Amino acid sequence: MDQYIIDRVLEEIKKSINGQNPDANLQNSPESEVLEPKAEVKEEKKSDAIQQERSMNVVNDSPAITEYVGCAIGDTVGLVIANLDRHLHEKMGMDPKYRSIGIISGRTGAGPQIMAADEAVKATNTEIVSVELARDTKGGAGHGCLIVLAAEDVSDARRAVEVALKELDRTFGDVYGCDAGHLEFQYSARASLALEKAFNAPIGKAFGLIVGAPAAVGLVMSDTALKTANVDLLSYSSPSVGTAHSNEFIIVISGDSGAVRQSIIAAREVGMSILRSMGQNPTSTTQPYI
Amino acid sequence: MDQYIIDRVLEEIKKSINGQNPDANLQNSPESEVLEPKAEVKEEKKSDAIQQERSMNVVNDSPAITEYVGCAIGDTVGLVIANLDRHLHEKMGMDPKYRSIGIISGRTGAGPQIMAADEAVKATNTEIVSVELARDTKGGAGHGCLIVLAAEDVSDARRAVEVALKELDRTFGDVYGCDAGHLEFQYSARASLALEKAFNAPIGKAFGLIVGAPAAVGLVMSDTALKTANVDLLSYSSPSVGTAHSNEFIIVISGDSGAVRQSIIAAREVGMSILRSMGQNPTSTTQPYI
Amino acid sequence: MDQYIIDRVLEEIKKSINGQNPDANLQNSPESEVLEPKAEVKEEKKSDAIQQERSMNVVNDSPAITEYVGCAIGDTVGLVIANLDRHLHEKMGMDPKYRSIGIISGRTGAGPQIMAADEAVKATNTEIVSVELARDTKGGAGHGCLIVLAAEDVSDARRAVEVALKELDRTFGDVYGCDAGHLEFQYSARASLALEKAFNAPIGKAFGLIVGAPAAVGLVMSDTALKTANVDLLSYSSPSVGTAHSNEFIIVISGDSGAVRQSIIAAREVGMSILRSMGQNPTSTTQPYI
Repeated sequence: MDQYIIDRVLEEIKKSINGQNPDANLQNSPESEVLEPKAEVKEEKKSDAIQQERSMNVVNDSPAITEYVGCAIGDTVGLVIANLDRHLHEKMGMDPKYRSIGIISGRTGAGPQIMAADEAVKATNTEIVSVELARDTKGGAGHGCLIVLAAEDVSDARRAVEVALKELDRTFGDVYGCDAGHLEFQYSARASLALEKAFNAPIGKAFGLIVGAPAAVGLVMSDTALKTANVDLLSYSSPSVGTAHSNEFIIVISGDSGAVRQSIIAAREVGMSILRSMGQNPTSTTQPYI
Repeated sequence: MDQYIIDRVLEEIKKSINGQNPDANLQNSPESEVLEPKAEVKEEKKSDAIQQERSMNVVNDSPAITEYVGCAIGDTVGLVIANLDRHLHEKMGMDPKYRSIGIISGRTGAGPQIMAADEAVKATNTEIVSVELARDTKGGAGHGCLIVLAAEDVSDARRAVEVALKELDRTFGDVYGCDAGHLEFQYSARASLALEKAFNAPIGKAFGLIVGAPAAVGLVMSDTALKTANVDLLSYSSPSVGTAHSNEFIIVISGDSGAVRQSIIAAREVGMSILRSMGQNPTSTTQPYI
Repeated sequence: MDQYIIDRVLEEIKKSINGQNPDANLQNSPESEVLEPKAEVKEEKKSDAIQQERSMNVVNDSPAITEYVGCAIGDTVGLVIANLDRHLHEKMGMDPKYRSIGIISGRTGAGPQIMAADEAVKATNTEIVSVELARDTKGGAGHGCLIVLAAEDVSDARRAVEVALKELDRTFGDVYGCDAGHLEFQYSARASLALEKAFNAPIGKAFGLIVGAPAAVGLVMSDTALKTANVDLLSYSSPSVGTAHSNEFIIVISGDSGAVRQSIIAAREVGMSILRSMGQNPTSTTQPYI
């Protein structure tokens, strides 16, 4: 184990034992070490609120730039650009009529952010420009994402990003993590433009997403889902097909809303059972909703 | 450092100090915090056995589903599907004659699992359908994998998965890990179908795999291996050629069995020397066998 | 959290508390546990120097092989091969006139190593053969790299690698890391062959590289950079364009040297502001130089 990490852990533990927990906002910086005692005392009261702060927007003293909208679970940040630079606009191949863009991008998760963006485009006058997946999750088996929305007016773009960030607590509900892997389930009674862009989902129909990592888990879950109810298999992804080489097996299903839900629930039971058999205990960081 | 991790570490340390080590199976879950004291006492005896449990199959109380075969080192899970859903069967482009599949998939390692699968197909009436590499290893420089075997009968698929899982302790023997990277060596006196599928290895001939990370280490090892003995270079892989963008340089060699072994041993010495010069001490998690 | 990690942390903490910090070089190995007390005492004095040792070349007792040149920050290793094996030479499609190669490869960072290689080819009689990016950074959002230089004579290759390794402390100066992501800025008053190979930079002109992770951060930084001064946008990269699926948005700019610097500085302010608004505190591990 890296000596640096050990030293940091030791240091943090000493601080925690002394009840002098500096603000979580400063955890990653050497500056936290040169904080004068006064600052630490001031922050002492915050220590029990830190855990709760994790998945919420964090406010600090430095004045935020106008592009900043907020942040949320999964290290997701929401940003807007009122008038995208024309060279970048052109290189990115965007439709000239859209000058303003909204951006949603996280280190952990693609499904939750895409679902959230789907709600955002339903609720606002915006369009999905692109959905890109990164091989990320901070050492986990899955994806991070970059989603770009466009609008003619920056207030629409901002509103869409706000809606998406608010949705994330819900859309992370059926993401179950553990050391060996993760499971993810998404359900929408009515798919909209983000789901069409990302997964070719038929607009207006019920939509389901089933993900399992390591990939074998997802494959067995997918098999169960498809046998459980009469749903359409829109696509599958695996480490070398349709993913950014993530260690996941993913299916996207569509159909009658009851059938889609039933398939997802059956897949979830199987996935949970496999990970538990591996000695894991997959848990949601927020609140399951399916 | 993330406050959440700090809190978890602190909590675990307190538990460990008190000798109340909850079962490793529950480490990843908030539920571990609500365990009643009785359960913890019951599990106290297990604490010294935990380390050893890590690379072994773990049994827990929830009844395993029939698809579950077992798990092993590298977060590898082995599963079977008796009768693969026909839509998935079709999308995955599988030969219609195979209804049953066996699946081996791990977070860490591709070589060890492929070698293990190679022994499995030698020992059973199964075929290799696909070998996919994920960019994984839980933050390390290498791969995870998804290997699909097919059989006409589910008992054959299950047997193959069982054989492969049992082989993994051996095939992980010459995987040497350290903070900066890793080395991997595989040797088979007689390559079979999994090695042919994954690496185009000539069936029946001696086979060697040499991997080094970061990639520069693998490149120098490969050079040494090829100069040491008269072996055929079947292929090389690097971050942008033939890998899932892993930070590895890999060669696959074939030839006379003595020459292949000699090449591997020379490469291993060079790789060890480089990593040690970097201040690392690469070690095997199981038992070297080459 | 993985029981194994907990156990290791506990063990390291006990050692640290007792002031018996074994040499950082041995941290990753079970052997560190069987060190006789004498060795630990000998190493006690080193413990305060360990932090500082991290980004420096480490020397140990085992005789280094002739291929080993040194190591540096970012788990970067520098190696040479005097006379590359001809089969590998051919497979890698190298120009036959070059027999000697220098290799620079790191787990964390591609920009810093490419900049360092650029200085190396300016200072020596070598050429850049290839620049490959791995999806790495040990669980972070970015890249690792494999850079191959070629020379007719091994002493030139060795010299180039030495120059590059020495440059790394400087070129890591404007890499700012934090838990949620990172920012990277590179500036050269006069681009040379490595920058041309990696980014199609016009040789002899001022060059700038702007990177932000998660990708949304980089996109807003890029927009700001391009609006700040009159620079040419040479290319952009995003998770699915031009990267190894890293969670970054990257632009490469060229132009008048004052304009390029001005763009970079404006982008850096925006990037810092966004990450701070996310509750992060991005910091350089060495010394900013732009």
